[in-house]
Amino acid sequence: MFRTHTCGELRLSDVNKQVTLAGWVQRSRKMGGMTFIDLRDRYGITQLVFNEEVNAELCEQANKLGREFVIQIKGTVNERFNKNANIPTGDIEIIVSELNILNTSATPPFTIEDNTDGGDDIRMKYRYLDLRRNAVRSNLELRHKMTIEVRKYLDQLGFLEVETPILIGSTPEGARDFVVPSRMNPGQFYALPQSPQTLKQLLMVSGFDRYFQIAKCFRDEDLRADRQPEFTQIDCEMSFVEQDDIINTFEGMAKHLFKTMRGIELTEPFQRMTWADAMKYYGSDKPDLRFGMPFVELMDVMKGHGFSVFDNATYIGGICAEGAATYTRKQLDALTEFVKKPQIGAKGMVYARIEADGTVKSSVDKFYSQEVLQQMKEAFGAKPGDLILILSGDDVMKTRKQLNELRLEVGSQLGLRDKNKFACLWVVDFPMFEWSEEEGRLMAMHHPFTHPKNEDIPLLDTDPAAVRADAYDMVINGVEVGGGSIRIHDSQLQARMFEILGFTPEKAQEQFGFLMNAFKFGAPPHGGLAYGLDRWVSLFAGLDSIRDCIAFPKNNSGRDVMLDAPAALDPSQLDELNLVVDIKE
Amino acid sequence: MFRTHTCGELRLSDVNKQVTLAGWVQRSRKMGGMTFIDLRDRYGITQLVFNEEVNAELCEQANKLGREFVIQIKGTVNERFNKNANIPTGDIEIIVSELNILNTSATPPFTIEDNTDGGDDIRMKYRYLDLRRNAVRSNLELRHKMTIEVRKYLDQLGFLEVETPILIGSTPEGARDFVVPSRMNPGQFYALPQSPQTLKQLLMVSGFDRYFQIAKCFRDEDLRADRQPEFTQIDCEMSFVEQDDIINTFEGMAKHLFKTMRGIELTEPFQRMTWADAMKYYGSDKPDLRFGMPFVELMDVMKGHGFSVFDNATYIGGICAEGAATYTRKQLDALTEFVKKPQIGAKGMVYARIEADGTVKSSVDKFYSQEVLQQMKEAFGAKPGDLILILSGDDVMKTRKQLNELRLEVGSQLGLRDKNKFACLWVVDFPMFEWSEEEGRLMAMHHPFTHPKNEDIPLLDTDPAAVRADAYDMVINGVEVGGGSIRIHDSQLQARMFEILGFTPEKAQEQFGFLMNAFKFGAPPHGGLAYGLDRWVSLFAGLDSIRDCIAFPKNNSGRDVMLDAPAALDPSQLDELNLVVDIKE
Repeated sequence: MFRTHTCGELRLSDVNKQVTLAGWVQRSRKMGGMTFIDLRDRYGITQLVFNEEVNAELCEQANKLGREFVIQIKGTVNERFNKNANIPTGDIEIIVSELNILNTSATPPFTIEDNTDGGDDIRMKYRYLDLRRNAVRSNLELRHKMTIEVRKYLDQLGFLEVETPILIGSTPEGARDFVVPSRMNPGQFYALPQSPQTLKQLLMVSGFDRYFQIAKCFRDEDLRADRQPEFTQIDCEMSFVEQDDIINTFEGMAKHLFKTMRGIELTEPFQRMTWADAMKYYGSDKPDLRFGMPFVELMDVMKGHGFSVFDNATYIGGICAEGAATYTRKQLDALTEFVKKPQIGAKGMVYARIEADGTVKSSVDKFYSQEVLQQMKEAFGAKPGDLILILSGDDVMKTRKQLNELRLEVGSQLGLRDKNKFACLWVVDFPMFEWSEEEGRLMAMHHPFTHPKNEDIPLLDTDPAAVRADAYDMVINGVEVGGGSIRIHDSQLQARMFEILGFTPEKAQEQFGFLMNAFKFGAPPHGGLAYGLDRWVSLFAGLDSIRDCIAFPKNNSGRDVMLDAPAALDPSQLDELNLVVDIKE
Repeated sequence: MFRTHTCGELRLSDVNKQVTLAGWVQRSRKMGGMTFIDLRDRYGITQLVFNEEVNAELCEQANKLGREFVIQIKGTVNERFNKNANIPTGDIEIIVSELNILNTSATPPFTIEDNTDGGDDIRMKYRYLDLRRNAVRSNLELRHKMTIEVRKYLDQLGFLEVETPILIGSTPEGARDFVVPSRMNPGQFYALPQSPQTLKQLLMVSGFDRYFQIAKCFRDEDLRADRQPEFTQIDCEMSFVEQDDIINTFEGMAKHLFKTMRGIELTEPFQRMTWADAMKYYGSDKPDLRFGMPFVELMDVMKGHGFSVFDNATYIGGICAEGAATYTRKQLDALTEFVKKPQIGAKGMVYARIEADGTVKSSVDKFYSQEVLQQMKEAFGAKPGDLILILSGDDVMKTRKQLNELRLEVGSQLGLRDKNKFACLWVVDFPMFEWSEEEGRLMAMHHPFTHPKNEDIPLLDTDPAAVRADAYDMVINGVEVGGGSIRIHDSQLQARMFEILGFTPEKAQEQFGFLMNAFKFGAPPHGGLAYGLDRWVSLFAGLDSIRDCIAFPKNNSGRDVMLDAPAALDPSQLDELNLVVDIKE
């Protein structure tokens, strides 16, 4: 070993010990014939001292060390005169007697400090230097700790971790697959799994009973801030269970994680909300419940009073921001601009302040009597000092989504979205299908293996769009951190489902035959859930993007700029794979 | 929940309890008005009893259940009259009061028993049924338990598990890469990692200090019995260490695994053998040391006595099989045939028995005096009753490898390769390079990042082929279960290494620039090791192939016959990827 201790280990009780340390030069400073160096490793920082008067040559050497040089030193632990209460090793320093340069360093392109001067691009290119920063490394330490706790919780409940293959077959339902040409099977391709969904269902058919895997998943989608082409799921499946069994098991896991990762004891059961209510009251299937401000629908109250915008609307709804009547005209105009942005798409916004005397002062006073405005106030249960914001439109769902954006924005402005506060929620009773304009058919909202609610099965023949599923998402602070469903285990019901989704029996057999065949040999009732590991870590670490909890993430073009991947292949590699690149304009 | 207990849980102390069980019908039999059903789940088997006289209708229903039907029953726990001492639940049975068929089953294509009647192909196609068999599932349970123990051991030593990406860049040095076309970067490809080698080295540059990952690795190689296109490594790396630190850390892990997985306490340090000795005494870099029979070289003794085969040889060597003088002529002829098989390639074999009176009776008696034969006997330290087997050839390494095959075969025949006995060994001091006839240049024996032994660095300029590396393999029972090396952390030495390997500076920069650049910013001394998870599990489970410890393995053509993957893509998928398939004859 190059060291007797790490740089985070020594304390007052170690004074006078002879030690050997190794690490990186964080910074150095000269002060009255003394040279002080902060030596850094993963575990902490220890101050080294060189005294010109005691050993001029050694001090001279120390003065030549650059930032990020890798050194090994021997010396004696000494009590510090000026103690540093900010670091655990701040009571001691090392009087160095021997210095050994293990490696030099060029000047890093940005400073290795918590607040670095490096921009995003340069830090991605030199990711291995960015990872030296405590702020980044600590996210990965948290990720490590979280997977340890996940496995501890699941192992103890009898879940078996089973590795499923990465090279599987391509399944067309769902997102776009990444594919891998097979050299041994010319012209044929593997696909990388979007999730181990069908494989974990096969494990249930195999009687594995309780399965999990911390599994890499792949989707070839256009990327957004919180998406990566490869991401990691805590993927779980159980047999002989109903929806409540799964919800209870994984709510237990969530509570275990809150306790072990953040020291937060959540004793109450998590709130549950139907998808229909989530849409009605929050305009989102992942409402942020750190704050209230549920939607209030105003068609009864506000329609038919001569304000043509509302009179022509099929939806009028609003939110009440407590104590926000102090919003200035300028702030309100900015909010109006916000909802009119193309990506939100509202036409305008109506606002109303509740005055100290209880009267309502609104932007549409000329159309409404104070009596109607008072009815509106009642509908919100608004008090003096509150601010009411109203949107309307001719598409109920679209207008609700706009109102959702407004609610989140106002919540942020009012400081109601504290990263250290957590609101956990199960959204349940998702619709089984959603209509795809693009495909001109019903699509599975979760996936084609989701079990419809038993009481809705008759609707499959009469009104499939109204069928609800035994599907559930866990939402924390407006982020979908996981979701799952009870699966169909009956091959006839599965066949009926494919029929409704527009598959011919032949096509269903071709694409999912292996699963439908498996179901003929005694499939147990089963269901499961997948948690997004990256999202959980981001949540616990207070990050805005999942990128910062991934060691080597890709950028928005799917590139690893550090590795400079992807890249062109050697022509002989393409040849061996029987492939020709043919880039169309 | 569909059950109150599992099928492996109930005991005498549960008698008279009302229980609900769910599982698969393993078998059923009728006996004097009673029907007995073995109900199976992952946890065990419980006997169900239906009495025709008590409930004729229920018994009738039970008689109609087929093998592998999934059922749920309610009933009362009863003490068995004929107890079954072979299973933990053998003291009790369930008097069934209610039966609920959860799913039917077609007749399985093979029996779901420990000794199945299904051949390899049919079991691979219906892998989900094969996985129902205890014998197969228990391998995966062992695998799960092993990864739990690996993580426990490493976490406690401060190793951080870091996920590295699966979509990386292609590196030409080494085996063939699997590649993944990028839709967002037309004409460019990712590669799947053959191992996280360079990424874990970058994590050391990042100061992660101790890294591990249970990592999927991919090699597009022609397959053999113990190879799969995707396999799993326990991949580890440490900073500020020397070879002994790594060997001690991972020998500790091996001992921890032997203890927790097999209940075997290994107290002695593992034997260490140089690569040169392994080749000299066993003709293999992974000798099976469950038995002795080291090679004895006989050039001095046997050459120059008129036996032209030996007189023309550059290598003559043999093994001494203790007590095997009883081998018949037929057995010896079969051994001769064995070594002459094309894949081994020896020309012939000489044998000699040590008679009871100490004289030597050999197949080449006419060329050798008893005096010379006695010298030979001395060389082996052979005793009466022993059998000496000798090979010769004009290529030292080739002949040693043939003798290795012979040694292993004789060891097997003599029952010296007991699967429940374990011989652990470190092979050290591997050569840095090996000559590639195909490429006409030196190749890195491990990989180009391996550190040469310090004392051999001067030889890099004068005799590179003689340079030994700080590289080590762990070998158990003749299987290489892991290996690693100290890495180069000096960018100049790394550049020199690429030079010797025939890379121009430009080519080295193009392919490994990211790593060489990283090394300019203060790389610490580091090294690591990777254990083959599949091989370890096979070893502990006593399997002949790694295939049986993998949930969904591929066959020798790289096909998953259950999923029928790989397969042709939809033309629109190829189009989106800017690819054309062009199969050459």
